[in-house]
Amino acid sequence: MTQSILFQHGTLAMLADGLFDGTITLKELLKKGDTGIGTAEGLDGELIILNGIAYQAKADGTVVQPDEDTLIPFANVHQWDPASEVDLNQCSTSDIMGVIEAEHLTNTMVGLTVAGEFDMVKTRAVKKQNKPYPTLAKTASEQAVFQKNSISGMLVGYYTPGLYEGMGVKGLHLHFISEDHQFGGHVLDFEVVSGELAYQAFSDFQLHLPVDNKDFMTYEPTALDDVKADIKQAE
Amino acid sequence: MTQSILFQHGTLAMLADGLFDGTITLKELLKKGDTGIGTAEGLDGELIILNGIAYQAKADGTVVQPDEDTLIPFANVHQWDPASEVDLNQCSTSDIMGVIEAEHLTNTMVGLTVAGEFDMVKTRAVKKQNKPYPTLAKTASEQAVFQKNSISGMLVGYYTPGLYEGMGVKGLHLHFISEDHQFGGHVLDFEVVSGELAYQAFSDFQLHLPVDNKDFMTYEPTALDDVKADIKQAE
Repeated sequence: MTQSILFQHGTLAMLADGLFDGTITLKELLKKGDTGIGTAEGLDGELIILNGIAYQAKADGTVVQPDEDTLIPFANVHQWDPASEVDLNQCSTSDIMGVIEAEHLTNTMVGLTVAGEFDMVKTRAVKKQNKPYPTLAKTASEQAVFQKNSISGMLVGYYTPGLYEGMGVKGLHLHFISEDHQFGGHVLDFEVVSGELAYQAFSDFQLHLPVDNKDFMTYEPTALDDVKADIKQAE
Repeated sequence: MTQSILFQHGTLAMLADGLFDGTITLKELLKKGDTGIGTAEGLDGELIILNGIAYQAKADGTVVQPDEDTLIPFANVHQWDPASEVDLNQCSTSDIMGVIEAEHLTNTMVGLTVAGEFDMVKTRAVKKQNKPYPTLAKTASEQAVFQKNSISGMLVGYYTPGLYEGMGVKGLHLHFISEDHQFGGHVLDFEVVSGELAYQAFSDFQLHLPVDNKDFMTYEPTALDDVKADIKQAE
């Protein structure tokens, strides 16, 4: 049987309910893949993982390389091994979705990167929250939003079918890191001038839950429909 | 990090939309665990896997041991290694849920078996469907329902948090096999006189999707809320 694995630590639903404790080290996470996205304890910025190196785009606009002991509440990683590469010109989100649809990959998870020249990239980074943690929706008012024009860099992220909404982000979930590693974040919008889309569909999805974390094991989850509304507000 | 894996092939949502093709062999499935439940191609009966041996409870009331080449559309398996065992007396579904709740395991997947004497077990088995396959809800009218009183045997199954509804069966999903392996099926109701509940919480959930199956990759999924209504009707 075909095997290619997407690893996920934690759930988006858990973040929606304010469970921001880090429950896996970056070191452990990187054993599961060399490419991915996530966040750090307290929703401290936006993680981008490329070639086995993690970058953390913070709410103050800086990008740092976090220590391997950094604790992570939520992340996705995989081994970068694209099945296909496509040249892109003058494209945006809908064009990437168009490729996934044309290739009949909408019913499984897909990992993707877009390397190239961007006309515009609009990102956000959440500010580190402290205990008692607020809900995800409430952090939205404290996020920093950035926009850069004419920038080289890379989008990294995933497509997730609607069936898995709540466990993860439905549709495209992309982070960005500039070529000079000085700018990045969770992508709100972008325009590619020219670039290359590389993607791979996953046969396997491995969800790892923080079963040793008492807060996670004992919390009463908000109903999924409410979680979806919260996520929409936070995006 | 703690690791104990529940393996799943296929999704319940896929079955709800009538995708009953077998897409993994029993032989491959058994490499992922020695205990579990599932169904065979065309929804041909109810599978119970114990000690690495699969039993197929069919709609005609017989139980057979399927060939290792049998194709499976949907199944869950794990390595039986219970963390806890509890004596049960005069109990039913709500008592098992009571243990899972008291142990704070409701936010992760749990595998469980109940071995013992049953006052009553009511099961169903779906009749093998042929192409073009109907939806899961439509097969409900063709399922056989059985009831046995005073029978020794074992419940095998899983607890799944509501977040994962549609991917799997929310709450308890149990199959039964009698001690003499002559009676079994998907459990609709039961009463334990005396028995032992053995359970284990999973840190990891591995979902394997049939990405080589064209019907799966190209189908247009029904909206999740409609899937949930269909599942309720089929249960």
